Amino acid sequence: MIVIMLSEACAPVDRRRIIDTVQFAGTGLRVHTPALLSLSGDHKKIAALLADEPCVLDVAKLPAAYPRSARLKGRPRTTPVPLGNADVGEDFTVIAGPCSVENRSQLLTIAGAVKAAGAHALRAGAFKPRTSPYSFHGLGVPGLRLLAEARELTGLPVVTEVVDVRDIEVVAEHVDMIQIGARNMQNYTLLREAGRTRVPVLMKRGLSASVDETLLASEYLLDGGNEQVVLCERGIRTFESSYRFTLDLGAVAVLKERTHLPVIVDPSHAAGASGRVVPLALAAAAVGADGIIVESHHDPAAALCDGAQALPVGDLPDLMSRLVHACTAAGRSLRFETGDQVRGGGLLDRVHS
Amino acid sequence: MIVIMLSEACAPVDRRRIIDTVQFAGTGLRVHTPALLSLSGDHKKIAALLADEPCVLDVAKLPAAYPRSARLKGRPRTTPVPLGNADVGEDFTVIAGPCSVENRSQLLTIAGAVKAAGAHALRAGAFKPRTSPYSFHGLGVPGLRLLAEARELTGLPVVTEVVDVRDIEVVAEHVDMIQIGARNMQNYTLLREAGRTRVPVLMKRGLSASVDETLLASEYLLDGGNEQVVLCERGIRTFESSYRFTLDLGAVAVLKERTHLPVIVDPSHAAGASGRVVPLALAAAAVGADGIIVESHHDPAAALCDGAQALPVGDLPDLMSRLVHACTAAGRSLRFETGDQVRGGGLLDRVHS
Amino acid sequence: MIVIMLSEACAPVDRRRIIDTVQFAGTGLRVHTPALLSLSGDHKKIAALLADEPCVLDVAKLPAAYPRSARLKGRPRTTPVPLGNADVGEDFTVIAGPCSVENRSQLLTIAGAVKAAGAHALRAGAFKPRTSPYSFHGLGVPGLRLLAEARELTGLPVVTEVVDVRDIEVVAEHVDMIQIGARNMQNYTLLREAGRTRVPVLMKRGLSASVDETLLASEYLLDGGNEQVVLCERGIRTFESSYRFTLDLGAVAVLKERTHLPVIVDPSHAAGASGRVVPLALAAAAVGADGIIVESHHDPAAALCDGAQALPVGDLPDLMSRLVHACTAAGRSLRFETGDQVRGGGLLDRVHS
Amino acid sequence: MIVIMLSEACAPVDRRRIIDTVQFAGTGLRVHTPALLSLSGDHKKIAALLADEPCVLDVAKLPAAYPRSARLKGRPRTTPVPLGNADVGEDFTVIAGPCSVENRSQLLTIAGAVKAAGAHALRAGAFKPRTSPYSFHGLGVPGLRLLAEARELTGLPVVTEVVDVRDIEVVAEHVDMIQIGARNMQNYTLLREAGRTRVPVLMKRGLSASVDETLLASEYLLDGGNEQVVLCERGIRTFESSYRFTLDLGAVAVLKERTHLPVIVDPSHAAGASGRVVPLALAAAAVGADGIIVESHHDPAAALCDGAQALPVGDLPDLMSRLVHACTAAGRSLRFETGDQVRGGGLLDRVHS
Repeated sequence: MIVIMLSEACAPVDRRRIIDTVQFAGTGLRVHTPALLSLSGDHKKIAALLADEPCVLDVAKLPAAYPRSARLKGRPRTTPVPLGNADVGEDFTVIAGPCSVENRSQLLTIAGAVKAAGAHALRAGAFKPRTSPYSFHGLGVPGLRLLAEARELTGLPVVTEVVDVRDIEVVAEHVDMIQIGARNMQNYTLLREAGRTRVPVLMKRGLSASVDETLLASEYLLDGGNEQVVLCERGIRTFESSYRFTLDLGAVAVLKERTHLPVIVDPSHAAGASGRVVPLALAAAAVGADGIIVESHHDPAAALCDGAQALPVGDLPDLMSRLVHACTAAGRSLRFETGDQVRGGGLLDRVHS
Repeated sequence: MIVIMLSEACAPVDRRRIIDTVQFAGTGLRVHTPALLSLSGDHKKIAALLADEPCVLDVAKLPAAYPRSARLKGRPRTTPVPLGNADVGEDFTVIAGPCSVENRSQLLTIAGAVKAAGAHALRAGAFKPRTSPYSFHGLGVPGLRLLAEARELTGLPVVTEVVDVRDIEVVAEHVDMIQIGARNMQNYTLLREAGRTRVPVLMKRGLSASVDETLLASEYLLDGGNEQVVLCERGIRTFESSYRFTLDLGAVAVLKERTHLPVIVDPSHAAGASGRVVPLALAAAAVGADGIIVESHHDPAAALCDGAQALPVGDLPDLMSRLVHACTAAGRSLRFETGDQVRGGGLLDRVHS
Repeated sequence: MIVIMLSEACAPVDRRRIIDTVQFAGTGLRVHTPALLSLSGDHKKIAALLADEPCVLDVAKLPAAYPRSARLKGRPRTTPVPLGNADVGEDFTVIAGPCSVENRSQLLTIAGAVKAAGAHALRAGAFKPRTSPYSFHGLGVPGLRLLAEARELTGLPVVTEVVDVRDIEVVAEHVDMIQIGARNMQNYTLLREAGRTRVPVLMKRGLSASVDETLLASEYLLDGGNEQVVLCERGIRTFESSYRFTLDLGAVAVLKERTHLPVIVDPSHAAGASGRVVPLALAAAAVGADGIIVESHHDPAAALCDGAQALPVGDLPDLMSRLVHACTAAGRSLRFETGDQVRGGGLLDRVHS
Repeated sequence: MIVIMLSEACAPVDRRRIIDTVQFAGTGLRVHTPALLSLSGDHKKIAALLADEPCVLDVAKLPAAYPRSARLKGRPRTTPVPLGNADVGEDFTVIAGPCSVENRSQLLTIAGAVKAAGAHALRAGAFKPRTSPYSFHGLGVPGLRLLAEARELTGLPVVTEVVDVRDIEVVAEHVDMIQIGARNMQNYTLLREAGRTRVPVLMKRGLSASVDETLLASEYLLDGGNEQVVLCERGIRTFESSYRFTLDLGAVAVLKERTHLPVIVDPSHAAGASGRVVPLALAAAAVGADGIIVESHHDPAAALCDGAQALPVGDLPDLMSRLVHACTAAGRSLRFETGDQVRGGGLLDRVHS
């Protein structure tokens, strides 16, 4: 695929001329944004045609077909995505919280601990995709309301998964970042609709999705106009069965070469056991990921889902202080979220009132 | 999981007593149908409690948690699913047709050839899930209308994929069997809604779904009350890259042990090249599959998608006659669909008029 | 890789001139046989240089680097390998027998049944590669002697595995075909030495070897001068755990496109359970394999290794008659080995005397 | 498997009585060392029989069958393996050097840089297992001599691979640690013979070996009496093709739970590209590995093998200083090898003399 980058300041008349010039030089011309065109064809020939156009910043030949997620010359290495006080893609970001919203007390207790540890955002599922129809599927909309309350009390932004295209609107109203889960990474309908919102999206790599397929899936979001996309490696399916999934940190290194989208890591699902979560989280930071999303619970044994892999909230402070060193190894900083943003204070009092 | 089979003739009062008896003997009791209960617990203890109940046909201990798709003692090995004149799960069934509906002439030409070869159903995509948002995504509803016309002209039942939960109704109105594609096997929202229709469903195994996850996904359909479910092996993702996917015929053998649902095979996507389609189709019949679904085109080089793996329609008669022998090896018969059902006649005339 | 085929009748002076012509046109020129040269370089240029050489039959561009195993234009599709009265690669060949030689009575009982069923060769392990050092590792040389005796009594050729390079000589003395097991497919020392013998070799594909790596491994055998090589697909390692290995029949189809070496299939290790062996064996025949090698035992429950996957010898006749149909589907014949070659007669009497 | 740990000070008469007591309580009793017995059987029953034996330190039930590599209660978490001035398993160990010994100048230049960077050992291949018989296979014994010279000049211990069982003796004479490569992890003949030496062994996990199979393979070494075994994760084979192998750091976490053998990581083969080597090396340190073995070259573009993944030696100092932080994250120290051990000095002078 040939990608043509134009100056943002390119006048319409110049853009029109450029389009006229290249439209028959290749096939499948698309105008993704005023400054980004793509088509298939002979790179040399197209570059030659545009050699004298001052508006053209770059005529790049991509090895694959993802014009909007690809890292391009003359563009920033990473496009940060705001999440509360954090910018995912700049400082290292830690998102923590339970597998699912179970009840008010559980969520607020965990949210308080996440906040106290200095992590940057709260995660918890209100809609859970489960392998069996007979398992717990989450609280639904009441769960979203509890998430909104936790945000109100702690000041932490909240992240939650959406599984049904018909729920996108209500989810987008309640949370700061919508998660597309691994099982839905190729649910293109869901991606298209999430791409139409203007809420940041966290898109997990599918269990058997290649790096390139992951980037192509992100194009569904970007093509809809939603430019706030964060990718997440969460483990792939391989022959090994001594843990739950194979955390693919090599893919993180490759993604950071190929895309300007921030890339975070979920160490919990791969680990399958809480004792492995911290080591994998540190490895994720050391390999150069932009953050982690980690399942954490105040009472893992009682968790309604994935308790075995939940990091006790009491272990979050140690994780945070170790992450500082792993981030230093990777040449990156980790800023602790401080309490300044807590609106209203007295969180635990409120929780138990 | 413990599964309790009751006689269909069990009186409500007896069923009520049985439920009262077991409900505290285990956890998670579910009444799937009047004749099928499931719960978790101690198999011996529960079997003992029900030893004197004449209504109870079987108290089975399943190795996994799919009560409705599991093959049970005292039940037929296979539950046939009607598709036009065929019953998938009885005689070997051949479904053929193009990757996508491209236009009227293309579809009717291929449909005529499929019919002439003696195959049993026509497949073609109106809604195509594509890895890239910039690829051809199918004709949509006009494609469904062409499928209905092809059915009218040939008498062949038609099968097509649905990818958006909001399209289920319109698809169900136009076709004889709804396909859930491999990428959507864990799109539980789509499964739930397809389970609420009463149209037969062809559910493809996911690219990296285990046999047990495939059966659990089928429970979403069955749990919704749709009992007409056919499974389809279509190749899994492995390290091998000399073809497109690894066709997993061992999984077909395992599925036939574990489920009463019919199991067919798609040899086309795994093959990735048309010369390998016939060998893999024959292998599928020999291993004991209940049928195949094969991509076929009258002009593969001009196909809008997956042309490389499309079997030329001229090769269908040879495939059919070879399948007879492979079916014989597996101890099964293959009945050619005859022309009797063609309503209206003069197909090719109509096509080109 | 560029491969240059010469006429077998090419005069030395002509061959010398051809070599002089091409040796600086590419790199890494190798003279594999008097009629087969290979080098890396520009195909067009090299073909042009040789355009007027009457000795040159073909200048082929291979997608991969296996000049001697590759199927070449102007050469037979398959190079048969003699095994007793059979030629592997012509009629479909059935090799059967126990996982390991356990004792004289066991081996001769099974050999008699294999013979009676009309199969073509006997397999049994004298040296067993086992995952644990604490498992049964075979009888060693006494096992080889029993194999030789079984051959003497039944007339069936025998196939056994070699695992130690230092045992090749003694194994080659006792058997008709040496097996290189899957775990040793990249034990290049063993391959090199087996390539120096003139005993036919059955080389199994490694658990995670690609098709191309399998062909490259066979080059170690062929490069040593041993041209009697049979490949064997036996299942690869994937995420699926409901059976033992994923039998990769798609790879058989690809191998038959790429190599002139015969390709057989071991359905037993993939199956992991005897009830799946016959279906997978039939699928192997239907996909176009040149034969099967199947574990079979007269008393599977008592077998010292892999009893769960051993086909009871009583099931061999049914397998043979079903294979006839599967072979017909694939356009190939299956000739039953008759009793004519039994030297000495009275097999069962002798066994039990 | 039941493992019985005895006190090292157990008197022969007591040991004899213990053996008599348990030998019929289970099956397959083995006396691995005077202090370590194993058998299969009923854990409770065997533990009860030994309840009053003061010599018995532990009666452990292992989930798998590797009595000698398993981490056992009352034993050190890690058994260090000496390598020059380092103890692999204590401080973090860095082994670096070229894919293969190419010539004296190349090896000594790289060795000097490895030493100068503060790494702990030199690696380089004299015997190379190559997928194709037509590739460069190493210098052989002359390469070993160059390795010995590099050790003499730098004081660095040297590590090299052995691929042929007949070369073990000569390799053991020249180097400080023998490497068993990934392709030979199930070459049990080679493992058995390496187990008979008393030279430390670095055993790489196979491309598709499970964690448990890796530990079972190490038992071949330990069972031969060689207790100086280091394991190495180097990437597994999966569907992903955007890099060379999938580095499986989750397996490192699991190995550290299950075995007392040190576990190091080779980030180079997985990376396949030098820019990914440092990130993966840091991740290995952060996840808790005991060291790394990294391919490094002074002129990667000219390397005879694997140049694309060779870290330029000029990047080693930066790697070392980043590793310090990653080790801190994992709660471990990294000690730089200082120049004190250089015997004879004047390395570069000598190299170029």
